Parts: sequence; C-alpha cells; structure tokens
Amino acid sequence: MQTTFAIKGNLVHTPQCGKLELHPQAYLVCENGTVAGIFETLPEGYQSIPVEDYGDKLILPGLVDLHVHAGQYAYRGLGMDMELLDWLEQNAFPEESRFAEEAYAEAAYRIFVDGLLHTTTTRASIFATLHRPATLKLMEMLDKAGLPCYVGKVNMDRNSPDYLRETTGESLAETRRWLEKSGEFTCVRPILTPRFTPSCTDALMNGLGQLHREFGTPMQSHLSENLSEIAWVQELCPGTRFYAESYARAGLFGGDCPTIMAHCVWSGEEERALMKEKGVFIAHCPQSNMNVSSGIAPIKQYLREGQKVGLGSDVAGGAHLSIFRAMTDAIQCSKLRWRLVDQETPALTMPEALYMATKGGGAFFGKVGSFEPGYKFDAVVLDDSNLPTTRSCTLAERVERTVYLSDGRPCAKYAAGRKLF
Amino acid sequence: MQTTFAIKGNLVHTPQCGKLELHPQAYLVCENGTVAGIFETLPEGYQSIPVEDYGDKLILPGLVDLHVHAGQYAYRGLGMDMELLDWLEQNAFPEESRFAEEAYAEAAYRIFVDGLLHTTTTRASIFATLHRPATLKLMEMLDKAGLPCYVGKVNMDRNSPDYLRETTGESLAETRRWLEKSGEFTCVRPILTPRFTPSCTDALMNGLGQLHREFGTPMQSHLSENLSEIAWVQELCPGTRFYAESYARAGLFGGDCPTIMAHCVWSGEEERALMKEKGVFIAHCPQSNMNVSSGIAPIKQYLREGQKVGLGSDVAGGAHLSIFRAMTDAIQCSKLRWRLVDQETPALTMPEALYMATKGGGAFFGKVGSFEPGYKFDAVVLDDSNLPTTRSCTLAERVERTVYLSDGRPCAKYAAGRKLF
Repeated sequence: MQTTFAIKGNLVHTPQCGKLELHPQAYLVCENGTVAGIFETLPEGYQSIPVEDYGDKLILPGLVDLHVHAGQYAYRGLGMDMELLDWLEQNAFPEESRFAEEAYAEAAYRIFVDGLLHTTTTRASIFATLHRPATLKLMEMLDKAGLPCYVGKVNMDRNSPDYLRETTGESLAETRRWLEKSGEFTCVRPILTPRFTPSCTDALMNGLGQLHREFGTPMQSHLSENLSEIAWVQELCPGTRFYAESYARAGLFGGDCPTIMAHCVWSGEEERALMKEKGVFIAHCPQSNMNVSSGIAPIKQYLREGQKVGLGSDVAGGAHLSIFRAMTDAIQCSKLRWRLVDQETPALTMPEALYMATKGGGAFFGKVGSFEPGYKFDAVVLDDSNLPTTRSCTLAERVERTVYLSDGRPCAKYAAGRKLF
Repeated sequence: MQTTFAIKGNLVHTPQCGKLELHPQAYLVCENGTVAGIFETLPEGYQSIPVEDYGDKLILPGLVDLHVHAGQYAYRGLGMDMELLDWLEQNAFPEESRFAEEAYAEAAYRIFVDGLLHTTTTRASIFATLHRPATLKLMEMLDKAGLPCYVGKVNMDRNSPDYLRETTGESLAETRRWLEKSGEFTCVRPILTPRFTPSCTDALMNGLGQLHREFGTPMQSHLSENLSEIAWVQELCPGTRFYAESYARAGLFGGDCPTIMAHCVWSGEEERALMKEKGVFIAHCPQSNMNVSSGIAPIKQYLREGQKVGLGSDVAGGAHLSIFRAMTDAIQCSKLRWRLVDQETPALTMPEALYMATKGGGAFFGKVGSFEPGYKFDAVVLDDSNLPTTRSCTLAERVERTVYLSDGRPCAKYAAGRKLF
C-alpha cells in the first residue's frame, strides 16, 4: 500500500457545522492513512507522489453510520405496516435468531458487507446479534473489506423470546470471550451493546459496566425512542429519574465510556443535560423514527445546545443504508417538526446534515469526517454526470443534487488511506 | 403493433383500496390496448397469441403521477434549504422563463421525458410553463414516447415577475391557440392549468372556465398547500368562503370539469365537502409537502370519507419522479401525522399506497390502474433479483421490498397495450 499519495478533484467538507468548505480542483494528500492537507497545487515535497486524478468528480469525506443492525439487513423494507413491538416479534427476533447458525450468518453478513462497502459509508457502529461466533465472523468480513467499524455482540437476558435470550451469566461470559478475541482485527473494534434497558437486567448491565472498566470498550444502545418504551423503562427501573440513568448507574453513559445512544426522540431536559455533560453521541435515525412511528427528534436544538450528533440508517427500522438518504430524511423531518411541533426552531440545512453525516458522527471514531490535516484519510468519490440537467450548477449545488438524487454509490472509496475500490 | 398478446409473470394489483390481489405466475391478456383478463392458464381462444414470459419478475399496473412540473425538472434537488416563496422566485420562476427559448425547452424536456420514460410511471398530469410552443413540443415528445399524459400550458397574469407573466388577453388567446393545436396528438391530451389562484385574476379564471365549456378540457391546479397561501387567497378573493371557491365560481372545480387539485394539506370541512360532492381528484405530494414545509395532508381521512386520491411527485417541490418513493413518503408521513397530530387516525398501509398510485390516481384517466378486464393495458415489469436477501419472501413481501428498496426503474413497460421498452 502506497503510504503517501494524493487524489485530485472537487473537494467538499464541513470543518464547521453548517458551513460547506469548497475546494474545486484541489489535491488531497494522504500520509500514512492521514490527511496531510488540501493544496491547490502540489507543494515541493509532494511533487513526485502518485496522484489519482478524478477529474470533475466530487470528493467528500467518507460518511459515518452511527447506528445500524447488520443482523436485520435481510429484513429491510419488510413489515413496515407493523408497529414496533409486532415488528420486533414477527421480523427482527426470528431473523436474528437464525444467526446462531454460522452458515446462515455468513451468507447474511456477506450481503450486508457487500451492501455497506458500495455505499458512501466508510465507518459504522454496528449491532450484530447475541451470537459470539457470528459476530466475530462479521468483524472478520468488515476487517477484510477495510471498513473501520465498531461491532457489538448484542446482550439480552430478559423480555425476549426463549430462542433469543441468554442467561445473565452466559451473556457476560460470552461477551468476555468475544472481547478477548476482538483484539485480532486490523481496523474493526468491539463495542459493548446491551440491546436496550428492557432487554437487560440490572445484573447484566452492571456486569457490562465492569467489562467496560476492565477492557476500556466503548458502548452503544438505544434511548428514548418512543413513549411506551420510556414508560416501560420507568417500570423496570424504579428509582431512576429518567431513562438514561438506567445506563448511567452501571457506568455506561459517556464520560470515560464513549457512548452512542440511538434515537433520543423524547429525551427530557435532565436527560439532555446528562448527555451533554457526559459527551454522549446521539445517533439520529430519521427514517426509522418515521417507519416505526416514533416521532421527530429535536436535532436542530441538540446542535444548538452543543450535543454531539451523528446520523444513523438504523437498518432495518430504516430501510436504506444510504447516509445521503438519512441526510435528506433528517432535513425533511426537521421541516415537518417546524411546521407541526415547534415554529421557534428552524429546519436543518444541507451543510448541517453533511456535518452530522461526516465530522459529527465521525468524532466517535477520533479525528474522522473532515479533510483537515491530521484527520483520517476517509473519502468517497462521486460521479454526478449521470444526473443530467440543463442548468450549470455551482459546486455547492452539485453536492446538494448528489445528496438528494444520486443512488449513493460512489465510484471510488478510501478508508484510513486504503483504497477500497 | 400486435393487438392481442399476453405477458406472464407475478401479477399484483389493488382492485379494492387497501387490498393486494396476487396472481403468481399468471397471464395478463391484452386486446386492442385493453386488459382482457388474468388467467392461470391461457383459455382456448388465446392459445396462439404471442406471450412475453417475464419469468419470476413482478408485474404491477403502470403507476400514475397526478402532479408534476416538467419545466422544473432541471431544478430537482436544488434550493431545498429555501422556503417556498424564495424558492419560487430564485429557482422556479427564472428556470421556467427559459422555456421561452425553444431550443432550451427542447433540451430540458428531452431530459424530463427520458427520465419519466424509465420510471414506473405510465401516465402523468403535467404542468409545462406558460409558453405555448414549448408546451406543444413537450406534448409531441411524450406522444412519441407513448406516455398517455395530460399536459397543461400554464396560465399566470398576476403576482409573478414581469419576465414570467402574461396579460389576461394574451393568456386566453394563447390557451385557445394551444387547445386548437392539441387535438393532433395520439395519446397526449391538454389540461387547463391556471397556476394557482394568486397567479390568476378573476377575469383569467372566468375566461378559462369559458374555454373549458367550449372545449370540454379538464383542469388542474394547486389547493390549500400552505397556510400563508390560503390567507393570501382570502385577501385576493373577497366573498369566497374558502380557497376552492376561487376555482369553483369560474366553473373549474369538478362536476362537469374533471379536476385535479394538488396538495389539499389544509382543506377545511366545507372545502372537503365540495371536493367530495364534485368528485375532485386530490394529488397527494408528500415529499414536496416536506421539502417546502407545508405539513402533512390527512390522506387516510380523505380515503375514509370517500375522496378520490392519487399520488404526485410534484417535481421540483419533490426531488424524485419515482412514485414508489411517493408511496413510501406517503406512508411515512402518515405515521408522523398519527404520532404528532391525530392519534385517532392510523397510518396508511402499503396496499392503500399502491391503490392511490395506480387505480386511485388512474381513475382520472378513465379505466386505468388495475388489471381488471376493460382497464387500459398499462403495466410495469420489475426485477427484484438485484435486491439480495437470505429470506425467502412471499409475493406480497417482494412487492413491499421493491417499493421501498428498488431504484424504481422497471425492466419493461407498457402503456395502453404499447410496449415502450
């Protein structure tokens, strides 16, 4: 692998939330997997490095999917007329149980990894299922494909069918075995994944907190997605003042434990204050929030109050892996929220959506999601010549059209300096 | 052209709203452009007719787009961060004015017609611009492509920039010349198209009413899309009790004058009663209603109260021509409406969305949008083999996945018995 090289094209990124930075026909230099800089002409020291010239194409930072269930990919776009609990019982749980069988898991994850590879997503934080061997297989496949993802073996020891539930002891022991094995991968990392509070007893949650302290593993889960779920958590966890405390009291809510919480549609003031204090990442999954009738999260307010926000596809609550689609869904939902719920808060803009899709969610992975020097060299190259128009568009307009109209399949993709295709 | 033939595959349609009817591996027979019937095996009289066997593919009735602006296609996916009036002034009006130049119009409409041809849409009701020659050019192109559409030369004699406004006299004279010329096409028909009440003086609206009575031409326009527009119409039309009366008092609101009204997001009780009484078609355009922050129309209620409802892409308020996308947008918006506005009214279902996309909107064109005998032979053939899954899906599940996940490009398409590709 060439360690120093450049790509050339129309570079677009969002170092600041809400502001597109455009570099038409510029060079993006990579050194050892990291961005060395953006240059209009190559400086002295880089004159002899290899350059891949993408002509008039668009080059964006690789996009980040902060929340996706790999074990539900076979079900995307199915059962969308059902409500959440029916959908879980009839679709998600039976499907996830099939991952006990390694051959099935391998076939299903092959389709998922191939799908993900050809989207604009370079990094994702992924729910597998509760099965350790299948989870390791998924990690191996992603690692080989060069996609630097977090992957979680799911934990669940209550409130699910017998065929998809562990005992507390099994769940913790399997998680430990999985963590011990997870150091073997090059770019894929483990993330603790209690499914959500209703699926995890206090003993399990506390045990996962101990594993976090022992291994330093980050965590991901779901939070305040819908109102009946919130009421249920209140019942299950007497003594907590709000949902997030069910994670926080086990030491699994930000601070020393980097945390992604999916949804946060209905988080109240205290919960939001704790998320902010602890630097918890919010994975906004607008399409899923529509499909399972959850509502519209107040994302513009979260950005304004300084929360960390990224986007998630939430396949298979969401039907599409494309984070371009998540961007336009987020904008459209924010417009409906303005119209129907809160006319004090304006809609999200395209540059804000691009920020969330790149640097916003990317921050969970370190210096990721921007072309600033020192950031991981993650990039996707997009050909918009197949979106014909009689208009001559500015570069910013080309980005907007591409996000709204393209099929979300880049023609080239780099992660941490490695060219994936 | 073969006048009697059959196609074979997995037939799916919705003769009744809300109910999928499935005919796996069945024959659909065409006689003189019309459906003769669905057969499990070909009856005696049809043994020797040519059969196109589409194997395991899906065959749906051609979809209907009840509301689309061909003159805005170059702008789709652009300026989506603007509000409606800014968007009209900065995007739509300047773009539409370019259609005064015939070469520009031809190039732009070529892109539109090619785009439309390769979607699942077989029939559409289309806004052109106010320019007669360009409108005739569009009609000629659609006619050649075999797409049986309604096309309207737009009328506007107030409240638009000088460069995109006619005098009342010009507008009526040009409309008459256009109508006289419009009889020449094989499958494309004219439709009167006052842009919307704010763009048309009473004199113009009354003149169009007279043209309707003279030529029998149907009409299309916009109704109750957003609240400030409604307030504006109230100011412009003293004496009307609600927006629809501004059309109705000119004889342009259903009854003898078949009418499509786009949007109807905020129609009140009296307006809805009049729509129902007059058999007005509602073109539901959920994506546009999100993009320009209009809100969510109460479509489930409209269906329950017996209104005639079809779907529209409303390009370029909507960014996508795909009526599959309009179907899923409609379902998703109805779920948010349930959650945020009205928990008495459940969400739309996939079979309801398919009905609106086919027979619901199709009824404006006559017997269109179903595979029942006597209906126009409009059909699209879809290959879902490129949507891999480890699940074995039922036929109904395959339809749902295709609507949610496919790129909306059929592999074969028929309109009124003519194979378009």
